[in-house]
Amino acid sequence: MHPDIQVKVATSQQHSGEYVFKVHPNLKGLIDLTFANDTPEEAASKVDIIFMAVPHGSSIEHVPKISEMGVRIIDMSADFRFRNPADYPVWYGWEHPAPDLLSKFVYGMPELHREELKSAHFISVPGCIASSSIYSLAPLAKAGLINGVAVVDAKIGSSGSGNKPSIATHFSERYNSVRIYSPSGHRHIGEIEQELSIVSGIKTTVTMSAHSVNMVRGILTTSSVFVDRELKMPDLWNAYRSMYGKEPFVRFIMDPNGLYKYPDPKLVVGSNFVDLGFVIDQHVRRVIALGSIDNLIKGAAGNAIQSMNVMEGFDEREGLMMSPMRLV
Amino acid sequence: MHPDIQVKVATSQQHSGEYVFKVHPNLKGLIDLTFANDTPEEAASKVDIIFMAVPHGSSIEHVPKISEMGVRIIDMSADFRFRNPADYPVWYGWEHPAPDLLSKFVYGMPELHREELKSAHFISVPGCIASSSIYSLAPLAKAGLINGVAVVDAKIGSSGSGNKPSIATHFSERYNSVRIYSPSGHRHIGEIEQELSIVSGIKTTVTMSAHSVNMVRGILTTSSVFVDRELKMPDLWNAYRSMYGKEPFVRFIMDPNGLYKYPDPKLVVGSNFVDLGFVIDQHVRRVIALGSIDNLIKGAAGNAIQSMNVMEGFDEREGLMMSPMRLV
Amino acid sequence: MHPDIQVKVATSQQHSGEYVFKVHPNLKGLIDLTFANDTPEEAASKVDIIFMAVPHGSSIEHVPKISEMGVRIIDMSADFRFRNPADYPVWYGWEHPAPDLLSKFVYGMPELHREELKSAHFISVPGCIASSSIYSLAPLAKAGLINGVAVVDAKIGSSGSGNKPSIATHFSERYNSVRIYSPSGHRHIGEIEQELSIVSGIKTTVTMSAHSVNMVRGILTTSSVFVDRELKMPDLWNAYRSMYGKEPFVRFIMDPNGLYKYPDPKLVVGSNFVDLGFVIDQHVRRVIALGSIDNLIKGAAGNAIQSMNVMEGFDEREGLMMSPMRLV
Amino acid sequence: MHPDIQVKVATSQQHSGEYVFKVHPNLKGLIDLTFANDTPEEAASKVDIIFMAVPHGSSIEHVPKISEMGVRIIDMSADFRFRNPADYPVWYGWEHPAPDLLSKFVYGMPELHREELKSAHFISVPGCIASSSIYSLAPLAKAGLINGVAVVDAKIGSSGSGNKPSIATHFSERYNSVRIYSPSGHRHIGEIEQELSIVSGIKTTVTMSAHSVNMVRGILTTSSVFVDRELKMPDLWNAYRSMYGKEPFVRFIMDPNGLYKYPDPKLVVGSNFVDLGFVIDQHVRRVIALGSIDNLIKGAAGNAIQSMNVMEGFDEREGLMMSPMRLV
Repeated sequence: MHPDIQVKVATSQQHSGEYVFKVHPNLKGLIDLTFANDTPEEAASKVDIIFMAVPHGSSIEHVPKISEMGVRIIDMSADFRFRNPADYPVWYGWEHPAPDLLSKFVYGMPELHREELKSAHFISVPGCIASSSIYSLAPLAKAGLINGVAVVDAKIGSSGSGNKPSIATHFSERYNSVRIYSPSGHRHIGEIEQELSIVSGIKTTVTMSAHSVNMVRGILTTSSVFVDRELKMPDLWNAYRSMYGKEPFVRFIMDPNGLYKYPDPKLVVGSNFVDLGFVIDQHVRRVIALGSIDNLIKGAAGNAIQSMNVMEGFDEREGLMMSPMRLV
Repeated sequence: MHPDIQVKVATSQQHSGEYVFKVHPNLKGLIDLTFANDTPEEAASKVDIIFMAVPHGSSIEHVPKISEMGVRIIDMSADFRFRNPADYPVWYGWEHPAPDLLSKFVYGMPELHREELKSAHFISVPGCIASSSIYSLAPLAKAGLINGVAVVDAKIGSSGSGNKPSIATHFSERYNSVRIYSPSGHRHIGEIEQELSIVSGIKTTVTMSAHSVNMVRGILTTSSVFVDRELKMPDLWNAYRSMYGKEPFVRFIMDPNGLYKYPDPKLVVGSNFVDLGFVIDQHVRRVIALGSIDNLIKGAAGNAIQSMNVMEGFDEREGLMMSPMRLV
Repeated sequence: MHPDIQVKVATSQQHSGEYVFKVHPNLKGLIDLTFANDTPEEAASKVDIIFMAVPHGSSIEHVPKISEMGVRIIDMSADFRFRNPADYPVWYGWEHPAPDLLSKFVYGMPELHREELKSAHFISVPGCIASSSIYSLAPLAKAGLINGVAVVDAKIGSSGSGNKPSIATHFSERYNSVRIYSPSGHRHIGEIEQELSIVSGIKTTVTMSAHSVNMVRGILTTSSVFVDRELKMPDLWNAYRSMYGKEPFVRFIMDPNGLYKYPDPKLVVGSNFVDLGFVIDQHVRRVIALGSIDNLIKGAAGNAIQSMNVMEGFDEREGLMMSPMRLV
Repeated sequence: MHPDIQVKVATSQQHSGEYVFKVHPNLKGLIDLTFANDTPEEAASKVDIIFMAVPHGSSIEHVPKISEMGVRIIDMSADFRFRNPADYPVWYGWEHPAPDLLSKFVYGMPELHREELKSAHFISVPGCIASSSIYSLAPLAKAGLINGVAVVDAKIGSSGSGNKPSIATHFSERYNSVRIYSPSGHRHIGEIEQELSIVSGIKTTVTMSAHSVNMVRGILTTSSVFVDRELKMPDLWNAYRSMYGKEPFVRFIMDPNGLYKYPDPKLVVGSNFVDLGFVIDQHVRRVIALGSIDNLIKGAAGNAIQSMNVMEGFDEREGLMMSPMRLV
């Protein structure tokens, strides 16, 4: 429903020839397109901008050629998120076959890379848990407060793991569970370290444990940073406000007397907002940084569109000003 | 976010003086208004259109005066839904104090009352369960197929019962329950009978049992009509298509090979769509009519806005073309 | 944990050789058995009683031989539920290959067939939705109140459809849905008609629509019976009390001032109770009969054990007096 | 259902005179008692053992007198959990009025205090989040691995916050939320520090953030301990096995190829089990200690009964060997 964009081609190998609304029946009455069987290259030849949503490791097979076609690329995979090719063997287990392309991609986080996005042609959209973690920790990194290890505890809904059926995602087994699916070694850690290191100017180390909880959409990250001096809340307000004060999609949820005292996925689901909060734990000199997003919007498609808006010179909010639903 | 409408005043006695986003924190960043303490009459004096969302029985205290102020009224309560004043003692237990006003209100269901809405000044918005029931049964009524009693079995989310805390709505007691809160005598039955009688031209009798199920939003109504002759699916397709074929917000969900074979609240939540389906049970000559809506949108605010669009001559879809979220 | 029973063999082709607690990790610390790869016949040769939980249509391949081994059989499938062989083609689409065996099986519902169970050797355990429907409607049938069609609207949790992963049962697609998966023609209808016909003495017709709702366990059936004379609540109390007054696992939930006014799966999940309620709708002379069970216990394994207790002469409550959890 | 115990008196001021099953309708058919209006002292005079479940700060008003009546006391409140009276002002904000009594109470955690429980007369039952945290961290403390701050991230269901209705616990607001209700300063931290200090022999510091997630029962705690030397999994297995290897209610859930790879509330809800797991994060020399319990059983009533069994010389498992339900 973006006023400046027209969807020309939607491709799917699995559903080629079917109406989009047959596969996504909620979209019935909103889209009349059928899925084409185009290769990414064929699809790219028909459009100005291509959004690539293929598996990690698959995007890299197509991007080199498409990048020479004069088409702007917005890639949802992890294949172009790292600036340093050496990160690929560490976090993904393979050597990057086109390391020169990495420098041409901009990490699609407008709040941190707006100027680069304005002149970009290729955008790599951040991972969902990485997004929530980076948004909430970046002001601390910029303020020089992350000297030790930042510890992220992530809670995410089931949509974060895709739509492939398995016994693990079978409703009866998944309902009411709190599943720690990645206690350590989650691949998004690499992205978080990269971005916090950029914003802080020093190498920053992160550890993370990821849990899936009993809901479909949304992320809350609860991050801990241990500081070596006494901090007060105005210090943190300054750090966060100076970084995000004018951002259209960043909100601070800090309402000690309200119903929602801190960020909660319930407040963002259905929207492109990222909600942030922070607390000082004086018992142990710990700063708790909270971030919450809709993993399918601000954690994926929303940041893709917002970044595109910046790249194309559109109003950054176009197509993205949906109200969160809350009562759902 | 309606392009032709500006919200001038939002009133609340309980939250007077507070920012709207303090009470509805999901709206932070989207609305800067504070709640005014205006009486309905005071609020009405500042606007062209007033949406009244006060308790049943309370609206009638204000509407007579406001109706003389030249302000168009869209009333969410039940106070002006019946055409026959005699229905109020039966279903609500009180005599209507201003029976003459009833004929000036149009039942806010554009698909059934579009022509009247075009020249209306006062709109009464239908009840939520009534809406789903009427939409799904009206084509059968119009086709003369409801001769006996129509039996409605309704399933609705918790938001249908408002936001007042009680032990019955306490999360630990409400979660995972299937609660039949109104086995018989539900007040929406009166509305359903009224509208089906209008469309069929004969007095139509309805019974209904209402259950609240383990979700926040959405309604599914499963209605049974026993017919006295053999029916075939094309007969029903004709009945439904002739009534709703060109409606922008009515969809047929009838996909025997699809993931969603019939209407399901999951497909409409977050949108103004009403999804319909129908089945013939040859074992007992029963027609099953299915309807599903978002009770807070097509079952309330959405129909209010759609009806206003018709009344004001706006494009009927303005402000209402939100995509259902499905994965939530 | 039944004091009179020892589990000697548990078989599984898929998990042969694995510990039971590897497949059912909740049972860790409670059972040390491994799954054997025995055929049903081999397993039967090692025990006094065999519980068969194989797919419909598969049980019939083994039962004839096992029935001649002097082993008592408790069959969870539908293969021996009907008394009339002619019902198999109608409801299951195949001719029964051993119609003579049908008369040797007793329908495993102690409240309706206790005397037959005492001298039984072979038990056929009722279907889950059938159980809730029959329990709630049988007193009306016995009282001669079902003359027309009984209309059952069933709501069941996801565990009713087994544990095979599919896109339809994928958490993200199944969560928050209200899915009418069988508007008509559900195979349990045959069982309900059989049992109600037996108890009433006249051929009784039933129709049913089955919905899966957003929970894992539990069933609520809301059934409608239209009566041709005026009824009062004491008439119904007499009908229900005379049938179930002394039953250890039947409870009446009829508490107009209580938190739980009517049966609700939340009150029975985790137990062998069946909760019943009834209402008279004077608007249309309809009786609403409510039944609620845990589909995996009173709707399956619980009735199997209770029936076994009767057959074996054990205290009928042995192994079954678990408290429902409610807050879950 | 404990074979050695008879419930003589159940008291309630709010529900005095009502049947217990009127307030807890799931217990209908299982208990015939009515709630008495007895004071704790009156109730104590009729029994050998009193379970006190009154608010924090209220128990202390009754215990001194009851302790002189020769009645054994099992107190669910926090009023006797600390050994050091100085902890009360820190964590609860009040001076303890009877500090001499503290040394007479044993912290009701059989796995850590079995010998003391055998000769105890007074038991103080641990807090729910404290229990999960202590069980999972104690082996690390005992092995001398907690030198810095242990960081606990807790996820708990709604039943942890009691049954008092409020807008915050209203179903529509609570459903689908991930609410960090105590980012720092949670009162259970004091208990955790006390017990870990006892088991390690050195003063141990803990910080914790507590979240309520979208379920009713269950806790998962994910705890991080940073170690200063390289650890291997056998080191941890030794630490955990030597402490809990023979415990009837402690299970290790560590199944890399299984459906449930780590502890998950879904595996314990409905039972007295505590499930434990541990992981080494080599990226930052972090040990992740996982604990999961049913907060209403092993986190409250279950530990109370297990401790009573030890105190009374009963089989420790009596009344507690319920199977977790998992599919719920």
